[in-house]
Amino acid sequence: MKAKKEEIARLIDSFEKGQLSRVDFEGRIADISADEAEIPHAIIDLGREERAGFIEAIFGAGKTSEQVQKIFSAFVEKKGRALATRCTIETIKMIVSEISGCGHDNRAGIVWYPERIEPVLETVTVVAGGTSDVPVAEEAAITLEFGGARVERVFDVGVAGIHRLFGRLELIRKAQVVIVTAGMEGALPSVVGGLVSAPVIAVPTSVGYGASFQGLAALLGMLNSCSAGITVTNIDNGFGAAVAALRILKRRNQ
Amino acid sequence: MKAKKEEIARLIDSFEKGQLSRVDFEGRIADISADEAEIPHAIIDLGREERAGFIEAIFGAGKTSEQVQKIFSAFVEKKGRALATRCTIETIKMIVSEISGCGHDNRAGIVWYPERIEPVLETVTVVAGGTSDVPVAEEAAITLEFGGARVERVFDVGVAGIHRLFGRLELIRKAQVVIVTAGMEGALPSVVGGLVSAPVIAVPTSVGYGASFQGLAALLGMLNSCSAGITVTNIDNGFGAAVAALRILKRRNQ
Amino acid sequence: MKAKKEEIARLIDSFEKGQLSRVDFEGRIADISADEAEIPHAIIDLGREERAGFIEAIFGAGKTSEQVQKIFSAFVEKKGRALATRCTIETIKMIVSEISGCGHDNRAGIVWYPERIEPVLETVTVVAGGTSDVPVAEEAAITLEFGGARVERVFDVGVAGIHRLFGRLELIRKAQVVIVTAGMEGALPSVVGGLVSAPVIAVPTSVGYGASFQGLAALLGMLNSCSAGITVTNIDNGFGAAVAALRILKRRNQ
Amino acid sequence: MKAKKEEIARLIDSFEKGQLSRVDFEGRIADISADEAEIPHAIIDLGREERAGFIEAIFGAGKTSEQVQKIFSAFVEKKGRALATRCTIETIKMIVSEISGCGHDNRAGIVWYPERIEPVLETVTVVAGGTSDVPVAEEAAITLEFGGARVERVFDVGVAGIHRLFGRLELIRKAQVVIVTAGMEGALPSVVGGLVSAPVIAVPTSVGYGASFQGLAALLGMLNSCSAGITVTNIDNGFGAAVAALRILKRRNQ
Amino acid sequence: MKAKKEEIARLIDSFEKGQLSRVDFEGRIADISADEAEIPHAIIDLGREERAGFIEAIFGAGKTSEQVQKIFSAFVEKKGRALATRCTIETIKMIVSEISGCGHDNRAGIVWYPERIEPVLETVTVVAGGTSDVPVAEEAAITLEFGGARVERVFDVGVAGIHRLFGRLELIRKAQVVIVTAGMEGALPSVVGGLVSAPVIAVPTSVGYGASFQGLAALLGMLNSCSAGITVTNIDNGFGAAVAALRILKRRNQ
Amino acid sequence: MKAKKEEIARLIDSFEKGQLSRVDFEGRIADISADEAEIPHAIIDLGREERAGFIEAIFGAGKTSEQVQKIFSAFVEKKGRALATRCTIETIKMIVSEISGCGHDNRAGIVWYPERIEPVLETVTVVAGGTSDVPVAEEAAITLEFGGARVERVFDVGVAGIHRLFGRLELIRKAQVVIVTAGMEGALPSVVGGLVSAPVIAVPTSVGYGASFQGLAALLGMLNSCSAGITVTNIDNGFGAAVAALRILKRRNQ
Amino acid sequence: MKAKKEEIARLIDSFEKGQLSRVDFEGRIADISADEAEIPHAIIDLGREERAGFIEAIFGAGKTSEQVQKIFSAFVEKKGRALATRCTIETIKMIVSEISGCGHDNRAGIVWYPERIEPVLETVTVVAGGTSDVPVAEEAAITLEFGGARVERVFDVGVAGIHRLFGRLELIRKAQVVIVTAGMEGALPSVVGGLVSAPVIAVPTSVGYGASFQGLAALLGMLNSCSAGITVTNIDNGFGAAVAALRILKRRNQ
Amino acid sequence: MKAKKEEIARLIDSFEKGQLSRVDFEGRIADISADEAEIPHAIIDLGREERAGFIEAIFGAGKTSEQVQKIFSAFVEKKGRALATRCTIETIKMIVSEISGCGHDNRAGIVWYPERIEPVLETVTVVAGGTSDVPVAEEAAITLEFGGARVERVFDVGVAGIHRLFGRLELIRKAQVVIVTAGMEGALPSVVGGLVSAPVIAVPTSVGYGASFQGLAALLGMLNSCSAGITVTNIDNGFGAAVAALRILKRRNQ
Repeated sequence: MKAKKEEIARLIDSFEKGQLSRVDFEGRIADISADEAEIPHAIIDLGREERAGFIEAIFGAGKTSEQVQKIFSAFVEKKGRALATRCTIETIKMIVSEISGCGHDNRAGIVWYPERIEPVLETVTVVAGGTSDVPVAEEAAITLEFGGARVERVFDVGVAGIHRLFGRLELIRKAQVVIVTAGMEGALPSVVGGLVSAPVIAVPTSVGYGASFQGLAALLGMLNSCSAGITVTNIDNGFGAAVAALRILKRRNQ
Repeated sequence: MKAKKEEIARLIDSFEKGQLSRVDFEGRIADISADEAEIPHAIIDLGREERAGFIEAIFGAGKTSEQVQKIFSAFVEKKGRALATRCTIETIKMIVSEISGCGHDNRAGIVWYPERIEPVLETVTVVAGGTSDVPVAEEAAITLEFGGARVERVFDVGVAGIHRLFGRLELIRKAQVVIVTAGMEGALPSVVGGLVSAPVIAVPTSVGYGASFQGLAALLGMLNSCSAGITVTNIDNGFGAAVAALRILKRRNQ
Repeated sequence: MKAKKEEIARLIDSFEKGQLSRVDFEGRIADISADEAEIPHAIIDLGREERAGFIEAIFGAGKTSEQVQKIFSAFVEKKGRALATRCTIETIKMIVSEISGCGHDNRAGIVWYPERIEPVLETVTVVAGGTSDVPVAEEAAITLEFGGARVERVFDVGVAGIHRLFGRLELIRKAQVVIVTAGMEGALPSVVGGLVSAPVIAVPTSVGYGASFQGLAALLGMLNSCSAGITVTNIDNGFGAAVAALRILKRRNQ
Repeated sequence: MKAKKEEIARLIDSFEKGQLSRVDFEGRIADISADEAEIPHAIIDLGREERAGFIEAIFGAGKTSEQVQKIFSAFVEKKGRALATRCTIETIKMIVSEISGCGHDNRAGIVWYPERIEPVLETVTVVAGGTSDVPVAEEAAITLEFGGARVERVFDVGVAGIHRLFGRLELIRKAQVVIVTAGMEGALPSVVGGLVSAPVIAVPTSVGYGASFQGLAALLGMLNSCSAGITVTNIDNGFGAAVAALRILKRRNQ
Repeated sequence: MKAKKEEIARLIDSFEKGQLSRVDFEGRIADISADEAEIPHAIIDLGREERAGFIEAIFGAGKTSEQVQKIFSAFVEKKGRALATRCTIETIKMIVSEISGCGHDNRAGIVWYPERIEPVLETVTVVAGGTSDVPVAEEAAITLEFGGARVERVFDVGVAGIHRLFGRLELIRKAQVVIVTAGMEGALPSVVGGLVSAPVIAVPTSVGYGASFQGLAALLGMLNSCSAGITVTNIDNGFGAAVAALRILKRRNQ
Repeated sequence: MKAKKEEIARLIDSFEKGQLSRVDFEGRIADISADEAEIPHAIIDLGREERAGFIEAIFGAGKTSEQVQKIFSAFVEKKGRALATRCTIETIKMIVSEISGCGHDNRAGIVWYPERIEPVLETVTVVAGGTSDVPVAEEAAITLEFGGARVERVFDVGVAGIHRLFGRLELIRKAQVVIVTAGMEGALPSVVGGLVSAPVIAVPTSVGYGASFQGLAALLGMLNSCSAGITVTNIDNGFGAAVAALRILKRRNQ
Repeated sequence: MKAKKEEIARLIDSFEKGQLSRVDFEGRIADISADEAEIPHAIIDLGREERAGFIEAIFGAGKTSEQVQKIFSAFVEKKGRALATRCTIETIKMIVSEISGCGHDNRAGIVWYPERIEPVLETVTVVAGGTSDVPVAEEAAITLEFGGARVERVFDVGVAGIHRLFGRLELIRKAQVVIVTAGMEGALPSVVGGLVSAPVIAVPTSVGYGASFQGLAALLGMLNSCSAGITVTNIDNGFGAAVAALRILKRRNQ
Repeated sequence: MKAKKEEIARLIDSFEKGQLSRVDFEGRIADISADEAEIPHAIIDLGREERAGFIEAIFGAGKTSEQVQKIFSAFVEKKGRALATRCTIETIKMIVSEISGCGHDNRAGIVWYPERIEPVLETVTVVAGGTSDVPVAEEAAITLEFGGARVERVFDVGVAGIHRLFGRLELIRKAQVVIVTAGMEGALPSVVGGLVSAPVIAVPTSVGYGASFQGLAALLGMLNSCSAGITVTNIDNGFGAAVAALRILKRRNQ
């Protein structure tokens, strides 16, 4: 048990000196916690976010619920806020029951604290074509809100029913940045890009079957968009799109 | 020279007995003609078209101008009409200068006779997203007209400027079949499919660069269309889409 | 509980005003039902089908049995009929035990109501090469019957035993549209396309192993068919092929 | 000759009414010009740019030198400026010899007028890893300058000699947007993205051989960047990246 | 000049001792001949063919006409026969004008000596679907004849006109081995394999366009054949299929 | 229950008249048996095997243990022998416990009856590179023995330890046909093909990880073999390779 | 039971005579052990390692815990050391509880004996970009230590935070060989390769999602590295990289 | 003209200060030389090679003969040696006629100075399977000799004639590093890797056709080699393999 404590102390040391990245710090703490060690919450503290310019999130995939919960708690205690993505429902339940005041979205696999963060940045509109794209869209939207942006959600506007998009144009046009998630053929960003002059970030989703090849069809579609000036993220990477939008918003305010 | 005549006689024989397909007949005549033999035009005649139910065309790719011209002439003489696709400009020039009364389209690589065929079937609307898709769209449109269909062309309606599509909706909606050609991300058929109830045949084109991978992006996009009931042809296959539409129109009239 | 009711009321409102697509409406109702809310069946009602020109189906994949059942019931109650595709056996059992008078096919994963719908449209022949392709072929056939078409099933005619196909030619030739499903090398549509003059819609299935790459081999085979005028749908998309056929049949009757 | 004039008049008409997109307008004028018609320069004029929010460029690929030159001249005459991308050296020579005051870059295949445009927007830094990536980087840089942005070029900083990048950090960090072009393994955007907080747009180039698969390796590398918030364009799409950056800069100034 | 002679002598030495493969021997002689050296024909002689059990051919691709001609002449002089594949028309012309008594096929790119070889082995039937597949089929057929097999050619039997295949069944069934070449969707081997009990070797050809991906569609189709017991060669590899058939025929006669 | 009996009677009827293939017959019987119907074993009997020239096997994948067992029993009862491939261990156990005198191989997933079949054909040598390839090799070997061939197994000869192959050369060279299974880089057939003059059939296996892409690397390796005259089957298709070898052996004996 | 003993005796015999490879020996012993046979540990002994020049490891994937444990024990007993890779946690637990003095790493799936091996070779530095790459990096590191190398681990240095790499340069530069593992875009080896003159072996990992395509992105990135002289192994092949490094170190000492 | 001189002076300045990489320096000089500027040879001089630890080469692809020649001359003048790869025959001729004492290899596209460099490092054996792989093998061999290594060439040992490899084993085994180039199925490195204990670097070549997919088959084959400890370079990257070998040899001597 003592060995673990020493190891933890050593890790924290390295972390504070900048010799250890947050990702690695998290990983190692998580490893130790797998063996039931206590995470010494009191010592997590660093000015990383300010320097790096974008928000830190706990990537929940491949970690046990207990591991995510412990790191999440440490963030909450020391920094007053935390965001965990790609969490299982079990993980979310564990965190929510442990820490009061969390927000969570089961379909998107996200939990965050505090539930409500005052928006200090401008508006990003997040568009989703179909219901199945909503988890990825919510990953983007919640990350944005956590990062201080205002978010408008426009979620019921697929290309197959393009008339509905037009009813929402005002909402879309008032955004500083538009994030568009779509699966299957990934055509929605092209349509949106032709209608607004704001930056458009396209997120292909793995929604589909057969020749969608887990999002490849949507990805290629977006890269070949006939609307100029659209940029693309990895498949299902709502978080990445949100960080890209936050980079834009924050740069404006410097 | 005699051997050639005998070979030709033998070929015609086989062809009339149905032992030799038109494609093979053409190929062999073309081979012989490459050695300067005369094609005995007078003997090409068969009831194939009525039986097979769709139009015959000379596939110009991989044949010399002279070969295509000779076969084209034989068709004109015996059947009173002919259609050749994927021709070089040289081929078209040679045929047009040889036979008066031909129609031709240099960009689409098509030449046909007679220039004007009275439409006896209903309307097919051929939609093209961008100027670069027009050659494929024209391959479809001319094939349709040659096969007896009325054709409406709606060629200036890309997804990136979707509002223009709406001005043409009446034109599109009056069609019995809609053929939509598009390159790059191939999104146009999804949009059209959501707006009309007629059958929609999507033709991906090889227009694009980089991650369009010579039409693969458009092909995958169309196969994954979120509008139900859209069917797809091979890349750049305007001819095939037209034959599919003619199958539909002709079946109605039986 | 009240919040849910209000949310439901709001959703219905949006749905009736056309601000919300059926797909999204379904998705949201399903989300709420996941939390045990009652779905207010009485209020689902809209003229969508007539406008859009093709049938509506519940896509069962990714929904719980209870969710599908609730939406299915709502359709039955309000519209007098319902179709759900890609259902698990559990879902089918739940619906069948709940609502008397349903038809169902376990292998195809489909359940529909009422069991028998009077055909009002012409005949579509659905061809399947092997036993493994039958679920996809049945997805097409049942969708067609649900949409009002007469259906002939020709299911025991693989390319490896091509003589059997010839015994069925009359059956195939009397169709207004032919749908051909095939896995592995996907050669059947080419053969059928050379024998009939009706429109042929090819559906690649994911049947196979190794270098079939989950249906890619069949898809490429069909796109490159040497029979002119064959069109193709996404892998395993029997529903899409049926809707394409219904588009053809319905357009004829307008 | 008269028919052509009428056709041109008709095209202009459609164009001014917004029934014809600029792309299509260009294409049709180019077709006609191929037959030696005069382009009536005096009538090209529209408020498109202001509405669409980004610059219009002539896509030179697939057009003859004469066609590009005529359209370019029309733009210059009516709008006082023009930009043509993907031009051959012959095209550039023809334009430059015809119109005095043009800028041009042979390696990037770009010609523009007037040579110097006063920057009214903030700074975008364009980074290129190797000499071979410079043409794509210049396509981005010149497009940006044409669109009114200030541009800093940082062109000699490959990942294999990462120390050189550090000497330029100040230059990179002062940008509002950073565009990074790279071929081969496409690693440079990840490195840059970890060093700056501004939005980073990554452009994969087709530079490489063997398993670079014409830019696919770089494209995948950038999509999977371990630096959060990087977005990607199509392979070799420097123009698209520039338009994306202009969308960001212009939105700030609204 | 002396150095070359010595080098040649050294090569022959190595070749006769079995230290140098024929392929390498050829390559090096060809290199030297590129510098106008004389090939000492008199010394090429080896019992390789008997040992290895299959015929030797000169692979003409990537060699100059003169190089192929010199090696061909050496074979003729010493072994009394020679076969060169993948030759340009120029190469064929040069050889044919140099050596009397050669057979040649311009479309297949093959030249051989002597023109007529007495068949000593049983019959192989070579089937080709379309005219475009004939060059590959002829590469197989001529290689077989050169190797001593009787060959039946059945070249006008595509899947799209399957009835013609049936008229030839007797011809196909009398073969000891059947080689089937086909491009586009590559379906013909499946059909043939279901009709005959002899070994069937399938050769995909690169004939096609768009989603044929240079023969990939045909290759995948054949590997997934639903007829059991079909084996496949590389795309366009008619020579390899012939050698495989000769392995079968020769093994029978041992 | 009566309906089922009638259905079964109808199926048998169709089967005996040749209107129903064995595959489909099997499939339908299996479907019915899923509902606990009795399979009327006494009536399965047909001369198919003699006509088709190769053995019939039950493809166990995707069938329940009970279904495979019932069909297997029917074969045993009526034809005196049966072979089932791709069976789970549960299926094998059920059959073995039900029918005495079966042979079985758990790793290869095969069960057959009777355990020992007298060889009447010549020798096929089945070569496997590594232990992991043995299940596929055994699928081939057992199918061959079931079909009447003599089989030599040479299973411990990978390319990485090529010297061991040489100790077995006599064994390999005495075969009339050689089947070579290999995963990973799939190099073994090239080596064997250079050492023997008999026909060589290569079977790529899905053994490997990472860039083996489930057997794609081995498949491509074998198709590009530098040993002439090697033919290839689908990935893991030991059964197909055996049928191809039986086609060769049986043709010899006609 | 007796039959098994005899079989085992026969296997050992073959193994000692070099007729049976270790891999096959293992596989067969494992098969027998699956049927509860005793493995006669006392007889495993051979001079293979010295001859082959690199270490032998038990590949745990696809073997039961019991099988791996028995082979491991045999190695320990006879050779005094053993290494098993790709083991499940269950396998590791079983071995560790059975044999005292083992080292093990659960995340890397490795167990070895004895825990500490005295380094006799020079230093290899193993670099890992992110925490997720550590299991592959540890597979390399532990294999190296087992093979007698000194190992330096540099695990917290991703490209996104490149400054941390520079703090470790001394550590990296003192290595005789550097192994760099990285997932996602796989950029780290390029950076390291530009900073050190030692041989750099790059190991792509399957870490990532979406367009990482299970390590393909990282693999392509590394193959296209702009740093000259970097070589690459299969995806996740830490063991292979270690053996490659040991080949270098051992060759030096000969 | 003066502007150019100043620009050149500026470039040299940057280059000497290390602000400009050699690659970029070359590129810019080449650009200027395209406009007929004089390259001031006298000033190229830097200690780069000693620092970076591997040789510098001029990459000839994409440069004009004149550009390569000028840079080559500058290297010769200032450093006393030069190496240019991927040169056209024209480039080689120009350099050879300009500078006496060069070595050159037309097939490999390489020219170097001085013709003979005294070997100071140990032996690398370069193995090539077929004649077509020799250019890539020579790229490796000449680079090695230029870098100071002794080189043994073993060029006539394909997998299809594996016995020839064995006659060369002593030659291969005496190497400190073995480089193996192979196209088609890329099997040779596996065989070599099983026979020697030295480090083996595999270079896939683009030799092949059809399903070789320009070297992809060989690349995948080598990555999946069943011989442990083989590492791989990009397709056709003989230069990279040589640099990797030099990294090994030089590290030994430090």
